[in-house]
Amino acid sequence: MLLKSNYKCLIASTSTLHQEDYLEYLLPTLIDFFKDTNKILFIPYARPGGLSHDEYTAKANSALASIGKTCIGIHTFTNPIEAVYNAKGIFTGGGNSFVLLQQLYKYNLLDALKKSIETGTAYLGTSAGSNICGLSIKTTNDMPIVYPPSFNALGILPFLINPHYLDTKPDLKHMGESRETRIKEFLTYNNEVVLGLREGSWLAMEKEKIHLRGKLSARLFYKNTIEELASGVELNQLLNELKI
Amino acid sequence: MLLKSNYKCLIASTSTLHQEDYLEYLLPTLIDFFKDTNKILFIPYARPGGLSHDEYTAKANSALASIGKTCIGIHTFTNPIEAVYNAKGIFTGGGNSFVLLQQLYKYNLLDALKKSIETGTAYLGTSAGSNICGLSIKTTNDMPIVYPPSFNALGILPFLINPHYLDTKPDLKHMGESRETRIKEFLTYNNEVVLGLREGSWLAMEKEKIHLRGKLSARLFYKNTIEELASGVELNQLLNELKI
Repeated sequence: MLLKSNYKCLIASTSTLHQEDYLEYLLPTLIDFFKDTNKILFIPYARPGGLSHDEYTAKANSALASIGKTCIGIHTFTNPIEAVYNAKGIFTGGGNSFVLLQQLYKYNLLDALKKSIETGTAYLGTSAGSNICGLSIKTTNDMPIVYPPSFNALGILPFLINPHYLDTKPDLKHMGESRETRIKEFLTYNNEVVLGLREGSWLAMEKEKIHLRGKLSARLFYKNTIEELASGVELNQLLNELKI
Repeated sequence: MLLKSNYKCLIASTSTLHQEDYLEYLLPTLIDFFKDTNKILFIPYARPGGLSHDEYTAKANSALASIGKTCIGIHTFTNPIEAVYNAKGIFTGGGNSFVLLQQLYKYNLLDALKKSIETGTAYLGTSAGSNICGLSIKTTNDMPIVYPPSFNALGILPFLINPHYLDTKPDLKHMGESRETRIKEFLTYNNEVVLGLREGSWLAMEKEKIHLRGKLSARLFYKNTIEELASGVELNQLLNELKI
Protein backbone atom coordinates (compact mmCIF):
# COMPACT_ATOMS: atom_id res chain seq x y z
CA MET A 1 0.00 0.00 0.00
CA LEU A 2 2.75 2.45 -1.03
CA LEU A 3 1.72 5.98 -1.80
CA LYS A 4 3.72 7.39 -4.69
CA SER A 5 2.19 10.80 -4.77
CA ASN A 6 2.91 14.26 -3.51
CA TYR A 7 -0.10 14.44 -1.20
CA LYS A 8 -0.76 17.40 1.04
CA CYS A 9 -4.14 16.83 2.64
CA LEU A 10 -5.90 17.73 5.84
CA ILE A 11 -8.81 15.34 6.29
CA ALA A 12 -10.96 16.31 9.27
CA SER A 13 -13.80 14.49 11.01
CA THR A 14 -15.84 17.67 11.38
CA SER A 15 -15.74 21.34 10.51
CA THR A 16 -17.08 22.52 13.85
CA LEU A 17 -16.60 21.56 17.48
CA HIS A 18 -19.37 21.95 20.06
CA GLN A 19 -19.75 25.59 21.12
CA GLU A 20 -17.09 26.75 18.67
CA ASP A 21 -17.31 28.67 15.41
CA TYR A 22 -17.08 27.09 11.98
CA LEU A 23 -13.48 25.80 11.37
CA GLU A 24 -12.30 27.56 14.58
CA TYR A 25 -10.25 24.64 15.96
CA LEU A 26 -8.50 24.11 12.61
CA LEU A 27 -7.56 27.73 11.82
CA PRO A 28 -4.14 27.70 13.56
CA THR A 29 -3.17 24.61 11.53
CA LEU A 30 -4.61 26.02 8.29
CA ILE A 31 -2.34 29.09 8.38
CA ASP A 32 0.65 26.88 7.62
CA PHE A 33 -1.30 24.34 5.57
CA PHE A 34 -2.46 26.93 3.02
CA LYS A 35 0.70 29.08 3.24
CA ASP A 36 1.39 28.82 -0.52
CA THR A 37 -1.88 30.34 -1.63
CA ASN A 38 -4.43 32.90 -0.54
CA LYS A 39 -7.07 31.71 -3.00
CA ILE A 40 -8.98 28.56 -2.07
CA LEU A 41 -11.25 26.75 -4.50
CA PHE A 42 -14.29 25.86 -2.40
CA ILE A 43 -16.48 22.87 -3.29
CA PRO A 44 -19.92 23.54 -1.71
CA TYR A 45 -21.74 20.61 -3.37
CA ALA A 46 -22.56 18.77 -0.11
CA ARG A 47 -24.93 21.63 0.84
CA PRO A 48 -25.47 21.07 4.60
CA GLY A 49 -29.06 21.81 5.60
CA GLY A 50 -29.84 22.52 1.95
CA LEU A 51 -27.69 25.72 1.94
CA SER A 52 -27.26 27.15 -1.56
CA HIS A 53 -23.82 27.01 -3.18
CA ASP A 54 -23.48 30.78 -2.76
CA GLU A 55 -24.52 30.74 0.89
CA TYR A 56 -22.17 27.89 1.72
CA THR A 57 -19.24 29.51 -0.08
CA ALA A 58 -19.88 32.76 1.83
CA LYS A 59 -19.79 30.80 5.11
CA ALA A 60 -16.44 29.16 4.25
CA ASN A 61 -15.08 32.46 3.00
CA SER A 62 -16.06 34.24 6.18
CA ALA A 63 -14.20 31.68 8.34
CA LEU A 64 -11.06 31.60 6.20
CA ALA A 65 -10.94 35.39 5.79
CA SER A 66 -9.63 35.57 9.36
CA ILE A 67 -6.40 33.91 8.18
CA GLY A 68 -6.24 35.99 5.01
CA LYS A 69 -7.77 33.53 2.55
CA THR A 70 -10.46 34.02 -0.08
CA CYS A 71 -12.81 31.19 -1.07
CA ILE A 72 -14.13 30.96 -4.61
CA GLY A 73 -17.00 28.55 -5.20
CA ILE A 74 -16.41 25.93 -7.90
CA HIS A 75 -20.00 26.52 -9.08
CA THR A 76 -18.99 29.98 -10.33
CA PHE A 77 -16.59 28.56 -12.95
CA THR A 78 -17.80 27.70 -16.45
CA ASN A 79 -15.16 24.94 -16.54
CA PRO A 80 -14.98 23.34 -13.07
CA ILE A 81 -12.43 20.71 -14.19
CA GLU A 82 -10.03 23.46 -15.25
CA ALA A 83 -10.70 25.25 -11.95
CA VAL A 84 -9.58 22.12 -10.07
CA TYR A 85 -6.36 21.81 -12.11
CA ASN A 86 -5.57 25.52 -11.68
CA ALA A 87 -6.17 25.59 -7.93
CA LYS A 88 -3.30 25.70 -5.45
CA GLY A 89 -5.65 25.02 -2.54
CA ILE A 90 -8.98 23.20 -2.44
CA PHE A 91 -11.51 22.92 0.38
CA THR A 92 -14.49 20.56 0.18
CA GLY A 93 -17.01 21.30 2.92
CA GLY A 94 -19.25 18.87 4.75
CA GLY A 95 -22.94 18.17 4.29
CA ASN A 96 -24.45 15.20 2.52
CA SER A 97 -21.90 12.75 1.08
CA PHE A 98 -24.39 11.31 -1.43
CA VAL A 99 -25.22 14.75 -2.81
CA LEU A 100 -21.53 15.68 -2.92
CA LEU A 101 -20.48 12.49 -4.72
CA GLN A 102 -23.38 12.72 -7.17
CA GLN A 103 -22.31 16.25 -8.14
CA LEU A 104 -18.65 15.21 -8.50
CA TYR A 105 -19.73 12.44 -10.90
CA LYS A 106 -22.12 14.76 -12.73
CA TYR A 107 -19.35 17.27 -13.47
CA ASN A 108 -16.75 14.54 -14.08
CA LEU A 109 -14.57 15.93 -11.30
CA LEU A 110 -13.31 12.83 -9.49
CA ASP A 111 -10.44 12.20 -11.86
CA ALA A 112 -9.41 15.87 -11.92
CA LEU A 113 -9.52 16.11 -8.13
CA LYS A 114 -7.49 12.95 -7.71
CA LYS A 115 -4.80 14.05 -10.16
CA SER A 116 -4.67 17.56 -8.73
CA ILE A 117 -4.27 16.22 -5.18
CA GLU A 118 -1.67 13.66 -6.31
CA THR A 119 0.47 16.42 -7.77
CA GLY A 120 0.56 18.41 -4.54
CA THR A 121 -2.48 20.73 -4.47
CA ALA A 122 -3.27 21.36 -0.79
CA TYR A 123 -6.63 19.69 -0.08
CA LEU A 124 -8.76 20.34 2.99
CA GLY A 125 -11.80 18.16 3.60
CA THR A 126 -14.27 18.20 6.49
CA SER A 127 -16.91 15.53 7.14
CA ALA A 128 -18.39 14.67 3.69
CA GLY A 129 -15.34 16.36 2.13
CA SER A 130 -13.21 13.87 4.10
CA ASN A 131 -15.46 10.91 3.39
CA ILE A 132 -14.77 11.23 -0.34
CA CYS A 133 -11.01 10.89 0.29
CA GLY A 134 -11.57 7.24 1.22
CA LEU A 135 -12.04 4.28 -1.08
CA SER A 136 -15.80 4.78 -1.08
CA ILE A 137 -18.54 6.52 0.93
CA LYS A 138 -19.89 3.19 2.20
CA THR A 139 -19.21 4.20 5.82
CA THR A 140 -20.84 7.62 5.71
CA ASN A 141 -23.45 8.46 8.37
CA ASP A 142 -25.50 10.49 5.90
CA MET A 143 -28.99 9.86 4.60
CA PRO A 144 -29.02 8.57 0.99
CA ILE A 145 -31.26 11.39 -0.28
CA VAL A 146 -29.96 11.11 -3.85
CA TYR A 147 -28.62 8.10 -5.79
CA PRO A 148 -25.07 8.63 -7.07
CA PRO A 149 -23.85 6.50 -10.02
CA SER A 150 -21.42 4.73 -7.68
CA PHE A 151 -20.32 4.85 -4.03
CA ASN A 152 -16.65 4.78 -5.11
CA ALA A 153 -14.78 7.91 -4.11
CA LEU A 154 -11.33 9.48 -4.58
CA GLY A 155 -9.32 6.69 -2.94
CA ILE A 156 -6.64 9.14 -1.80
CA LEU A 157 -6.60 7.17 1.46
CA PRO A 158 -6.08 3.38 1.31
CA PHE A 159 -9.08 2.88 3.62
CA LEU A 160 -12.53 4.34 4.39
CA ILE A 161 -13.37 7.11 6.82
CA ASN A 162 -16.24 7.18 9.27
CA PRO A 163 -16.40 10.86 10.21
CA HIS A 164 -18.11 12.08 13.41
CA TYR A 165 -17.29 8.71 14.95
CA LEU A 166 -19.44 8.18 18.05
CA ASP A 167 -18.74 5.76 20.86
CA THR A 168 -21.45 3.34 21.89
CA LYS A 169 -23.59 4.56 24.78
CA PRO A 170 -24.62 1.59 26.90
CA ASP A 171 -27.61 3.43 28.42
CA LEU A 172 -29.23 4.23 25.08
CA LYS A 173 -32.96 3.46 24.96
CA HIS A 174 -33.22 3.82 21.20
CA MET A 175 -32.85 0.52 19.35
CA GLY A 176 -30.94 1.88 16.32
CA GLU A 177 -27.55 0.27 15.68
CA SER A 178 -24.40 1.70 17.28
CA ARG A 179 -21.70 3.05 15.00
CA GLU A 180 -19.50 0.09 15.92
CA THR A 181 -22.23 -2.37 14.91
CA ARG A 182 -22.72 -0.59 11.59
CA ILE A 183 -19.01 -0.64 10.75
CA LYS A 184 -18.79 -4.31 11.74
CA GLU A 185 -21.69 -4.98 9.35
CA PHE A 186 -19.73 -3.16 6.64
CA LEU A 187 -16.79 -5.53 7.27
CA THR A 188 -19.11 -8.50 6.71
CA TYR A 189 -19.48 -7.43 3.09
CA ASN A 190 -16.22 -5.60 2.37
CA ASN A 191 -12.61 -6.70 2.95
CA GLU A 192 -11.44 -3.15 3.60
CA VAL A 193 -10.19 -1.02 6.50
CA VAL A 194 -12.29 1.68 8.18
CA LEU A 195 -11.04 4.51 10.38
CA GLY A 196 -13.55 6.00 12.83
CA LEU A 197 -12.46 9.63 13.28
CA ARG A 198 -13.94 11.36 16.33
CA GLU A 199 -14.90 15.03 16.16
CA GLY A 200 -11.70 17.01 16.78
CA SER A 201 -9.44 14.49 15.02
CA TRP A 202 -7.97 14.88 11.57
CA LEU A 203 -5.53 13.15 9.26
CA ALA A 204 -2.51 15.13 8.10
CA MET A 205 -1.27 13.59 4.86
CA GLU A 206 2.14 14.55 3.55
CA LYS A 207 3.62 12.61 0.67
CA GLU A 208 3.69 9.02 1.94
CA LYS A 209 2.76 9.70 5.54
CA ILE A 210 -0.69 9.91 7.11
CA HIS A 211 -0.56 11.14 10.71
CA LEU A 212 -3.50 11.13 13.10
CA ARG A 213 -3.75 14.63 14.61
CA GLY A 214 -5.86 16.32 17.29
CA LYS A 215 -6.18 15.38 20.94
CA LEU A 216 -8.26 12.23 20.57
CA SER A 217 -7.52 8.67 19.63
CA ALA A 218 -9.20 7.11 16.59
CA ARG A 219 -10.73 3.68 16.05
CA LEU A 220 -9.42 1.34 13.35
CA PHE A 221 -11.67 -1.50 12.11
CA TYR A 222 -10.50 -4.38 9.93
CA LYS A 223 -11.51 -8.02 9.60
CA ASN A 224 -12.53 -9.07 13.11
CA THR A 225 -10.31 -6.55 14.82
CA ILE A 226 -10.80 -3.12 16.38
CA GLU A 227 -7.80 -1.06 17.48
CA GLU A 228 -7.68 2.25 19.28
CA LEU A 229 -4.99 4.40 17.66
CA ALA A 230 -3.24 7.11 19.68
CA SER A 231 -2.97 10.60 18.28
CA GLY A 232 0.31 10.99 16.40
CA VAL A 233 0.36 7.50 14.90
CA GLU A 234 1.43 7.21 11.25
CA LEU A 235 -1.19 5.16 9.45
CA ASN A 236 0.54 4.03 6.29
CA GLN A 237 3.36 2.42 8.23
CA LEU A 238 0.89 0.89 10.68
CA LEU A 239 -1.18 -0.66 7.87
CA ASN A 240 2.00 -2.08 6.35
CA GLU A 241 3.03 -3.58 9.69
CA LEU A 242 -0.42 -5.05 10.18
CA LYS A 243 -0.23 -6.38 6.60
CA ILE A 244 -3.69 -5.05 5.78
CA MET B 1 -53.34 8.79 -4.69
CA LEU B 2 -56.03 6.07 -4.70
CA LEU B 3 -55.02 2.59 -3.65
CA LYS B 4 -56.79 -0.03 -5.71
CA SER B 5 -55.34 -3.07 -4.08
CA ASN B 6 -56.24 -5.55 -1.45
CA TYR B 7 -53.45 -4.58 0.94
CA LYS B 8 -53.06 -6.16 4.35
CA CYS B 9 -49.84 -4.83 5.80
CA LEU B 10 -48.37 -4.11 9.19
CA ILE B 11 -45.46 -1.73 8.75
CA ALA B 12 -43.61 -1.16 12.02
CA SER B 13 -40.89 1.32 12.95
CA THR B 14 -38.98 -1.27 14.95
CA SER B 15 -39.08 -4.96 15.87
CA THR B 16 -38.07 -4.42 19.46
CA LEU B 17 -38.84 -1.90 22.18
CA HIS B 18 -36.33 -0.99 24.89
CA GLN B 19 -36.13 -3.72 27.56
CA GLU B 20 -38.59 -5.94 25.67
CA ASP B 21 -38.11 -9.14 23.71
CA TYR B 22 -38.01 -9.33 19.94
CA LEU B 23 -41.50 -8.55 18.50
CA GLU B 24 -43.00 -8.65 22.02
CA TYR B 25 -45.11 -5.48 21.70
CA LEU B 26 -46.54 -6.60 18.35
CA LEU B 27 -47.47 -10.18 19.24
CA PRO B 28 -51.04 -9.43 20.46
CA THR B 29 -51.75 -7.66 17.15
CA LEU B 30 -50.06 -10.37 15.08
CA ILE B 31 -52.40 -13.10 16.37
CA ASP B 32 -55.26 -11.55 14.42
CA PHE B 33 -53.07 -10.20 11.61
CA PHE B 34 -51.75 -13.66 10.68
CA LYS B 35 -54.97 -15.53 11.57
CA ASP B 36 -55.33 -17.04 8.08
CA THR B 37 -51.99 -18.85 8.09
CA ASN B 38 -49.61 -20.56 10.46
CA LYS B 39 -46.73 -20.56 7.96
CA ILE B 40 -44.85 -17.31 7.50
CA LEU B 41 -42.33 -16.79 4.73
CA PHE B 42 -39.46 -14.95 6.44
CA ILE B 43 -37.14 -12.67 4.48
CA PRO B 44 -33.89 -12.47 6.47
CA TYR B 45 -31.85 -10.60 3.82
CA ALA B 46 -31.29 -7.43 5.92
CA ARG B 47 -29.05 -9.47 8.28
CA PRO B 48 -28.85 -7.23 11.39
CA GLY B 49 -25.39 -7.34 12.95
CA GLY B 50 -24.31 -9.64 10.12
CA LEU B 51 -26.50 -12.54 11.40
CA SER B 52 -26.66 -15.44 8.94
CA HIS B 53 -29.93 -16.12 7.14
CA ASP B 54 -30.40 -19.28 9.21
CA GLU B 55 -29.67 -17.54 12.51
CA TYR B 56 -32.03 -14.68 11.72
CA THR B 57 -34.83 -17.00 10.62
CA ALA B 58 -34.43 -18.97 13.86
CA LYS B 59 -34.77 -15.74 15.83
CA ALA B 60 -37.99 -14.76 14.04
CA ASN B 61 -39.31 -18.29 14.33
CA SER B 62 -38.66 -18.36 18.05
CA ALA B 63 -40.64 -15.15 18.61
CA LEU B 64 -43.58 -16.13 16.40
CA ALA B 65 -43.74 -19.69 17.77
CA SER B 66 -45.37 -18.21 20.89
CA ILE B 67 -48.44 -17.37 18.79
CA GLY B 68 -48.37 -20.69 16.94
CA LYS B 69 -46.57 -19.61 13.78
CA THR B 70 -43.67 -21.21 11.92
CA CYS B 71 -41.18 -19.11 9.94
CA ILE B 72 -39.54 -20.51 6.84
CA GLY B 73 -36.59 -18.58 5.46
CA ILE B 74 -36.88 -17.52 1.82
CA HIS B 75 -33.21 -18.52 1.38
CA THR B 76 -34.17 -22.19 1.78
CA PHE B 77 -36.29 -22.20 -1.41
CA THR B 78 -34.76 -23.02 -4.77
CA ASN B 79 -37.32 -20.68 -6.37
CA PRO B 80 -37.78 -17.66 -4.07
CA ILE B 81 -40.15 -15.89 -6.51
CA GLU B 82 -42.51 -18.88 -6.38
CA ALA B 83 -42.18 -18.91 -2.58
CA VAL B 84 -43.38 -15.30 -2.46
CA TYR B 85 -46.39 -16.04 -4.70
CA ASN B 86 -47.30 -19.15 -2.67
CA ALA B 87 -47.05 -17.44 0.72
CA LYS B 88 -50.13 -16.45 2.70
CA GLY B 89 -48.04 -14.47 5.17
CA ILE B 90 -44.70 -12.73 4.70
CA PHE B 91 -42.40 -11.11 7.28
CA THR B 92 -39.38 -9.06 6.28
CA GLY B 93 -37.14 -8.40 9.26
CA GLY B 94 -35.01 -5.34 9.94
CA GLY B 95 -31.29 -4.86 9.55
CA ASN B 96 -29.55 -3.01 6.76
CA SER B 97 -31.91 -1.55 4.12
CA PHE B 98 -29.18 -1.39 1.46
CA VAL B 99 -28.30 -5.06 1.91
CA LEU B 100 -31.99 -6.01 1.91
CA LEU B 101 -32.79 -4.05 -1.24
CA GLN B 102 -29.70 -5.32 -3.04
CA GLN B 103 -30.75 -8.91 -2.36
CA LEU B 104 -34.34 -8.24 -3.48
CA TYR B 105 -32.99 -6.88 -6.79
CA LYS B 106 -30.50 -9.73 -7.11
CA TYR B 107 -33.25 -12.36 -6.85
CA ASN B 108 -35.71 -10.27 -8.87
CA LEU B 109 -38.18 -10.27 -5.98
CA LEU B 110 -39.52 -6.71 -5.93
CA ASP B 111 -42.15 -7.32 -8.57
CA ALA B 112 -43.25 -10.62 -7.01
CA LEU B 113 -43.50 -9.08 -3.54
CA LYS B 114 -45.48 -6.12 -4.82
CA LYS B 115 -47.97 -8.30 -6.72
CA SER B 116 -48.30 -10.74 -3.85
CA ILE B 117 -48.99 -7.92 -1.37
CA GLU B 118 -51.43 -6.24 -3.78
CA THR B 119 -53.47 -9.40 -3.97
CA GLY B 120 -53.89 -9.68 -0.22
CA THR B 121 -50.94 -11.61 1.19
CA ALA B 122 -50.49 -10.46 4.79
CA TYR B 123 -47.17 -8.58 4.95
CA LEU B 124 -45.32 -7.69 8.14
CA GLY B 125 -42.30 -5.41 7.96
CA THR B 126 -40.11 -4.05 10.73
CA SER B 127 -37.48 -1.34 10.31
CA ALA B 128 -35.68 -2.13 7.00
CA GLY B 129 -38.62 -4.42 6.14
CA SER B 130 -40.85 -1.34 6.53
CA ASN B 131 -38.49 1.01 4.73
CA ILE B 132 -38.84 -1.02 1.53
CA CYS B 133 -42.63 -0.51 1.59
CA GLY B 134 -42.11 3.16 0.77
CA LEU B 135 -41.35 4.74 -2.60
CA SER B 136 -37.61 4.37 -2.01
CA ILE B 137 -35.09 3.83 0.80
CA LYS B 138 -33.79 7.40 0.51
CA THR B 139 -34.82 8.17 4.10
CA THR B 140 -33.26 5.11 5.73
CA ASN B 141 -30.92 5.65 8.70
CA ASP B 142 -28.70 2.76 7.66
CA MET B 143 -25.11 2.79 6.52
CA PRO B 144 -24.71 2.26 2.75
CA ILE B 145 -22.43 -0.77 3.14
CA VAL B 146 -23.41 -2.20 -0.26
CA TYR B 147 -24.49 -0.47 -3.50
CA PRO B 148 -27.93 -1.61 -4.69
CA PRO B 149 -28.82 -1.12 -8.40
CA SER B 150 -31.42 1.48 -7.36
CA PHE B 151 -32.84 3.05 -4.20
CA ASN B 152 -36.41 2.52 -5.50
CA ALA B 153 -38.42 0.16 -3.34
CA LEU B 154 -41.85 -1.51 -3.33
CA GLY B 155 -43.94 1.68 -3.34
CA ILE B 156 -46.77 -0.03 -1.46
CA LEU B 157 -47.05 3.22 0.51
CA PRO B 158 -47.48 6.50 -1.44
CA PHE B 159 -44.67 8.07 0.64
CA LEU B 160 -41.36 7.22 2.31
CA ILE B 161 -40.79 5.92 5.81
CA ASN B 162 -38.15 7.05 8.26
CA PRO B 163 -38.16 4.21 10.81
CA HIS B 164 -36.77 4.65 14.35
CA TYR B 165 -37.65 8.34 14.07
CA LEU B 166 -35.75 10.29 16.74
CA ASP B 167 -36.66 13.71 18.07
CA THR B 168 -33.99 16.39 18.11
CA LYS B 169 -32.16 16.68 21.39
CA PRO B 170 -31.24 20.32 22.00
CA ASP B 171 -28.46 19.43 24.47
CA LEU B 172 -26.56 17.22 22.04
CA LYS B 173 -22.82 17.94 21.88
CA HIS B 174 -22.24 15.90 18.76
CA MET B 175 -22.38 17.95 15.56
CA GLY B 176 -24.03 15.31 13.34
CA GLU B 177 -27.30 16.38 11.73
CA SER B 178 -30.62 15.78 13.52
CA ARG B 179 -33.15 13.47 11.91
CA GLU B 180 -35.34 16.48 11.15
CA THR B 181 -32.48 18.26 9.35
CA ARG B 182 -31.75 15.14 7.30
CA ILE B 183 -35.35 14.73 6.19
CA LYS B 184 -35.59 18.44 5.35
CA GLU B 185 -32.47 17.98 3.19
CA PHE B 186 -34.22 15.07 1.47
CA LEU B 187 -37.15 17.40 0.66
CA THR B 188 -34.71 19.83 -1.00
CA TYR B 189 -34.06 17.20 -3.67
CA ASN B 190 -37.28 15.17 -3.74
CA ASN B 191 -40.89 16.35 -4.06
CA GLU B 192 -42.21 13.46 -1.95
CA VAL B 193 -43.75 12.90 1.48
CA VAL B 194 -41.88 11.32 4.41
CA LEU B 195 -43.37 9.81 7.54
CA GLY B 196 -41.13 9.70 10.60
CA LEU B 197 -42.33 6.65 12.59
CA ARG B 198 -41.16 6.56 16.21
CA GLU B 199 -40.28 3.24 17.86
CA GLY B 200 -43.56 1.71 19.03
CA SER B 201 -45.60 3.08 16.10
CA TRP B 202 -46.77 1.11 13.10
CA LEU B 203 -48.96 1.52 10.05
CA ALA B 204 -51.91 -0.84 9.68
CA MET B 205 -52.81 -0.99 6.00
CA GLU B 206 -56.11 -2.55 4.98
CA LYS B 207 -57.27 -2.19 1.41
CA GLU B 208 -57.36 1.58 0.86
CA LYS B 209 -56.79 2.65 4.43
CA ILE B 210 -53.50 3.29 6.23
CA HIS B 211 -53.99 3.86 9.95
CA LEU B 212 -51.27 5.03 12.34
CA ARG B 213 -51.21 2.64 15.30
CA GLY B 214 -49.39 2.42 18.63
CA LYS B 215 -49.40 4.95 21.45
CA LEU B 216 -47.22 7.62 19.86
CA SER B 217 -47.80 10.33 17.31
CA ALA B 218 -45.82 10.35 14.06
CA ARG B 219 -44.17 13.16 12.12
CA LEU B 220 -45.17 13.96 8.55
CA PHE B 221 -42.78 15.95 6.35
CA TYR B 222 -43.69 17.47 2.98
CA LYS B 223 -42.55 20.56 1.09
CA ASN B 224 -41.83 23.14 3.79
CA THR B 225 -44.25 21.65 6.27
CA ILE B 226 -43.98 19.36 9.28
CA GLU B 227 -47.11 17.97 10.94
CA GLU B 228 -47.46 15.86 14.05
CA LEU B 229 -50.05 13.14 13.37
CA ALA B 230 -52.03 11.64 16.24
CA SER B 231 -52.25 7.88 16.61
CA GLY B 232 -55.35 6.60 14.85
CA VAL B 233 -55.17 8.99 11.89
CA GLU B 234 -55.92 7.53 8.43
CA LEU B 235 -53.11 8.59 6.14
CA ASN B 236 -54.51 8.08 2.68
CA GLN B 237 -57.47 10.34 3.39
CA LEU B 238 -55.20 12.88 5.06
CA LEU B 239 -52.86 13.01 2.06
CA ASN B 240 -55.85 13.50 -0.24
CA GLU B 241 -57.14 16.33 1.94
CA LEU B 242 -53.71 17.96 1.99
CA LYS B 243 -53.57 17.46 -1.80
CA ILE B 244 -50.08 16.00 -1.60
